Amino acid sequence: MRSSYPSPLSPPSLHRILLRLRHSLSTTTATTAAAAAAMATTTEDSLRQALAAKQSTIDASGNAIRQLKSAGASKSEIDEAVKALNALKLEKTSIENQLKASISGGDANGSVVSREAFRQAVVNTLERRLFYIPSFKIYRGVAGLYDYGPPGCAVKSNVLAFWRQHFVLEEDMLEVDCPCVTPEVVLKASGHVDKFTDLMVKDEKTGTCYRADHLLKDHCKDKLEKDLALSAEKAAELKHVLAVLDDLSAEQLGAKIKEYGITAPDTKNPLSDPYPFNLMFQTSIGPSGVSTGYMRPETAQGIFVNFRDLYYYNGNKLPFAAAQIGQAFRNEISPRQGLLRVREFTLAEIEHFVDPDDKSHPKYSEVENLKFLMFPRDEQMSGQSAKRLRLGDAVSKGIVNNQTLAYFIGRVYLFLTRLGINEERLRFRQHLPNEMAHYAADCWDAEIESSYGWIECVGIADRSAYDLRAHTDKSGIALVAQEKFAEPKEVEKLVITPVKKELGLAFKGSQKMVVEALEAMKEKEAMDMKAALETKGEVEFEVCTLQKTVTIKKNMVSISKEKKKEHQRVFTPSVIEPSFGIGRIIYCLYEHSFYMRPSKAGDEQLNVFRFPPLVAPIKCTVFPLVQNQQYEEVAKQISRSLTAAGISNKKDITGTSIGKRYARTDELGVPFAVTVDSTSSVTIRERDSKDQIRVSVEEVAAVVKDVSEGRSTWAIS
Amino acid sequence: MRSSYPSPLSPPSLHRILLRLRHSLSTTTATTAAAAAAMATTTEDSLRQALAAKQSTIDASGNAIRQLKSAGASKSEIDEAVKALNALKLEKTSIENQLKASISGGDANGSVVSREAFRQAVVNTLERRLFYIPSFKIYRGVAGLYDYGPPGCAVKSNVLAFWRQHFVLEEDMLEVDCPCVTPEVVLKASGHVDKFTDLMVKDEKTGTCYRADHLLKDHCKDKLEKDLALSAEKAAELKHVLAVLDDLSAEQLGAKIKEYGITAPDTKNPLSDPYPFNLMFQTSIGPSGVSTGYMRPETAQGIFVNFRDLYYYNGNKLPFAAAQIGQAFRNEISPRQGLLRVREFTLAEIEHFVDPDDKSHPKYSEVENLKFLMFPRDEQMSGQSAKRLRLGDAVSKGIVNNQTLAYFIGRVYLFLTRLGINEERLRFRQHLPNEMAHYAADCWDAEIESSYGWIECVGIADRSAYDLRAHTDKSGIALVAQEKFAEPKEVEKLVITPVKKELGLAFKGSQKMVVEALEAMKEKEAMDMKAALETKGEVEFEVCTLQKTVTIKKNMVSISKEKKKEHQRVFTPSVIEPSFGIGRIIYCLYEHSFYMRPSKAGDEQLNVFRFPPLVAPIKCTVFPLVQNQQYEEVAKQISRSLTAAGISNKKDITGTSIGKRYARTDELGVPFAVTVDSTSSVTIRERDSKDQIRVSVEEVAAVVKDVSEGRSTWAIS
Repeated sequence: MRSSYPSPLSPPSLHRILLRLRHSLSTTTATTAAAAAAMATTTEDSLRQALAAKQSTIDASGNAIRQLKSAGASKSEIDEAVKALNALKLEKTSIENQLKASISGGDANGSVVSREAFRQAVVNTLERRLFYIPSFKIYRGVAGLYDYGPPGCAVKSNVLAFWRQHFVLEEDMLEVDCPCVTPEVVLKASGHVDKFTDLMVKDEKTGTCYRADHLLKDHCKDKLEKDLALSAEKAAELKHVLAVLDDLSAEQLGAKIKEYGITAPDTKNPLSDPYPFNLMFQTSIGPSGVSTGYMRPETAQGIFVNFRDLYYYNGNKLPFAAAQIGQAFRNEISPRQGLLRVREFTLAEIEHFVDPDDKSHPKYSEVENLKFLMFPRDEQMSGQSAKRLRLGDAVSKGIVNNQTLAYFIGRVYLFLTRLGINEERLRFRQHLPNEMAHYAADCWDAEIESSYGWIECVGIADRSAYDLRAHTDKSGIALVAQEKFAEPKEVEKLVITPVKKELGLAFKGSQKMVVEALEAMKEKEAMDMKAALETKGEVEFEVCTLQKTVTIKKNMVSISKEKKKEHQRVFTPSVIEPSFGIGRIIYCLYEHSFYMRPSKAGDEQLNVFRFPPLVAPIKCTVFPLVQNQQYEEVAKQISRSLTAAGISNKKDITGTSIGKRYARTDELGVPFAVTVDSTSSVTIRERDSKDQIRVSVEEVAAVVKDVSEGRSTWAIS
Repeated sequence: MRSSYPSPLSPPSLHRILLRLRHSLSTTTATTAAAAAAMATTTEDSLRQALAAKQSTIDASGNAIRQLKSAGASKSEIDEAVKALNALKLEKTSIENQLKASISGGDANGSVVSREAFRQAVVNTLERRLFYIPSFKIYRGVAGLYDYGPPGCAVKSNVLAFWRQHFVLEEDMLEVDCPCVTPEVVLKASGHVDKFTDLMVKDEKTGTCYRADHLLKDHCKDKLEKDLALSAEKAAELKHVLAVLDDLSAEQLGAKIKEYGITAPDTKNPLSDPYPFNLMFQTSIGPSGVSTGYMRPETAQGIFVNFRDLYYYNGNKLPFAAAQIGQAFRNEISPRQGLLRVREFTLAEIEHFVDPDDKSHPKYSEVENLKFLMFPRDEQMSGQSAKRLRLGDAVSKGIVNNQTLAYFIGRVYLFLTRLGINEERLRFRQHLPNEMAHYAADCWDAEIESSYGWIECVGIADRSAYDLRAHTDKSGIALVAQEKFAEPKEVEKLVITPVKKELGLAFKGSQKMVVEALEAMKEKEAMDMKAALETKGEVEFEVCTLQKTVTIKKNMVSISKEKKKEHQRVFTPSVIEPSFGIGRIIYCLYEHSFYMRPSKAGDEQLNVFRFPPLVAPIKCTVFPLVQNQQYEEVAKQISRSLTAAGISNKKDITGTSIGKRYARTDELGVPFAVTVDSTSSVTIRERDSKDQIRVSVEEVAAVVKDVSEGRSTWAIS
């Protein structure tokens, strides 16, 4: 059942939204180049052209036959022409099939179908065995809210325990746990109150709301998939729209919706113009109603606001990382894609604080030899695909910005593959320059391929000093680090002194902005100005905030370099942020772990989840071979000894056939089954190989514990 | 530092609020008898009387002296009288001191002071070492919101891991994980939308909100504590108000506030009448604004609405338990008591579903011999104190309603004491009849004594079928269980058939309520009516919903018993609910674990948390004795081997003295410290005994793992 589903367009996602927020804070306005996606269209384009050409030939042949008929041609002549026409039609059908397959990104046997059938099989099993349950189901549920049922809850708890072991414990991180309810001021500082929005349109008659980009996207995809007669030019246009979708302004989106005549999907009523809708759940803290709060959209802010205390806790030393696992909330306009886009989800986030002048990592050597699929910017822009790279080479070639970022990429790779993510369906995709906020140094997403396409599951971003600066500005509390020098250093400092009196005379009300612009000059710019003022007496100077150029004269500013003794360096640390969408990782893990195999009798297909013991919801089932008090007693005893050893287990004492009981347990992904077939020794069976070994009753717990915890492997146990 | 703080009044609490909700759904209107508290007043009353008597004597003596003076008595006579008066005043002071001590519930040395000083010492240490941090501190925080800093977060995570092991794994529970965002319909069914309120008053000029009961309580306590001249009658009145505080209606509260002339504490402005304020954080789900949602006030509802699926998952068998750990939210009007009353907190809840006709428990024998402090209803009503009882005796004497409830009480006792709660400061208090909702069969709170008094930390309630019925009614989905009979059973069924025509003629618009009342009759009542109708032809019948008695005639209803064959029994299971306030348990654990001891030089008091290794935030610290590369290398190696063994540890390679480093680590409650004082073997020191043993470098990880995980104890290791 393993199959690969290259999807030209990755779906909108948790990280994309965050990105959008961050991106919207940036000054970059370039279009998103889903350049790799565009390359996949080459075949499709030529097929569309071939199809159009074939259609012309068919039309021409049709005309020719009609002419033959009206000209009274012979029957054999006409039959010959009709036969030729039919052959042409067959060829057309074949091109159509190829085109359909090309659009859906699979082979000519219709992979959209197989992809959706596969997903349906997984989801059916997950829902039937209560891995998840649509929340509040008896009240017909709420879109975008899901419960983890017993096995799902156990998987989640295993994934989080491993996350804690792999990151918090092994990397000596400072874990914190902050509330979900967050006062407005914090999210105002972070930018979420103003910018954490999606564009929405309303059905003008019923008031039903839709995400504007979803409607446009659906329209374009639908056209591309179903309208095979679409010209290659029109197809190219629609694809361009899809590629730049995330970057369209409200006006641009509205214009496209009008141009394509898109109406409300349910009623066909006209739609309003798009307008921003904030995705945070809003509430009120305390009884007075005057204190606005939000349910946090990410856990990171709780860490940033605690920077000062955490830095102190770490002995005022950098680097250090803080981590947080917790719920986050996004009031999606219209949640889609089942478990991938939800209104409440668990995030696990790390904020690694580091000196911006030294982003080396002491444990870098432990990951530099890892090799895995990476998809750097250049490969995306030039339409190539992801490549297996050695991480150390990516750093030394400057593809990955720094060692610390690379170290986390490596650790994330190890984390995901140890959970059971198929490493051939995992890639690290670098953000294109216009996907990143202006302050970000470099960003990589761990993307996992699922039946929905490539899904962003972990974002690993070097966010520079942005977040700490934002909270420093808003709170007035300096979130900074100090480096004490062993002995005082003499440093040359640039001193820019605007002469306010002269500037005031010259620029009146704009004086303040000119002063600020002068003071903000970097060293090179300032020294160039100094030289120009000395030679020419005046210089043209662009003031961004005024959106114009002004003339600065010699008497308006003094620029110099002065020597100072400094005892320490005070700076805002950079933040490297790996952020994990736990629910998405788990869903992808379900897809990667699921397979079907024929029953022993060969009369049905049985479902199996090949979870590694680390994440399996239950490590071991225990069955008596037959219903018999002695065997049941032994089963109980084994179950107790497993529980005491901390191994989750389940007894199945129903009288069902042993094959059926194996099938039930395979469907929950239980790796080991103990069958009690004597009172002294029992059979342990491994799920995937179905291999069996015999072990004495006393040894069962120890053996299962060893293989479950990876101390010994099944092959050698 | 261990001391006991008997407080006559337990503070309002998480469980009290829940209770209030549940209680307010009940029809019982009796007053809350904080009967035990009332008994503590005996001494206080006699002291107040003695004080008043002494004051009269003093007044009389004063008068006598004045008379002596005006009558021109001799100096020696007057001196004698003044001396006697001074002696009386001294006696009065002594009574005042006794009274103060009695009010504050301590000894005559002023235990309020020591209690608060103790709390301050704990809280200072907790805050300085970042066990917790007031949330959003750099923005001056939000009342009732706290972060767990690194050691607090580790303690919490250890407590939750142990909870999972002790309950979910060992009891084979079905764990679920539901969202916090909850649609209105669910909380409408549960009663929270209508009844989950506190009474609030507003400062009529500034609009500042206060909890009405808090103001009244503060007023009464203040009077009682500070006004020593209060008459015993007035004191008794104020104490009665405190005792019935939770049961006062808005009108009664308002009347008392008026009567006592209570004004806004900050401004002394007049206050509004009390009115209910719903404690749920409200929000809106989706963009349309029409779908109201709330942040859940408890996790239990998520389990109830999933009953049908969970019952199926359990093979349609009872009993079974579902469990959930998660955040819950209560928008307190004015949070007080630091970490005990917060606006967002972690709950761990169990819903054990059981056949109401069979509440035995298969593992009951494992707990029946446990003995611990229990505080049954009768002892509270008769003013006695909590008693050490054998759980099995409490069940057999009918004090605890059933085996399953008792089983959970026993398991909770084991859970809390293994965490490190002092068993002498833990009691199980039974709810008084009027504290419980009408449907509840029995309720017990695990109360832990802290510097705030006895704190309800776990509620263990037999809630009968209430919750499942409420959701069945609201959703129309039957949340029921079936018991299939081995062979069909013949049962006699009561059949009540109201004759609607006759009833309509007789009662017109009230017909429907009469019909419903007739149909709702229990067997005995119906058979009595049948007999009366047959002999007398008519009978008086009380219709509660009409609040009057009507006359039912023979032709208005037919009552009979019919025999039916039944193949199964369909019933609504009872729910036994242990509900854990995790934050409260952790706070009490901090207080019970904290002590101070003199430093080696005897010049300062050092703080220690005596956490058991199970909950200690870090299990082991590793220090090189001196700063030396060889020792640091060994320390690193030991730290790595500890991490690989899953033992959380911290290196301290600062050059600080070994004593200071021990002190630092004791203050975090780290149970073991490894000092590297050679390259081949090291010293391991235990925190509380300060005993040291020598272990080879290779063995360190295994030894620490064994003592940390309780496989061997320090004493014998």
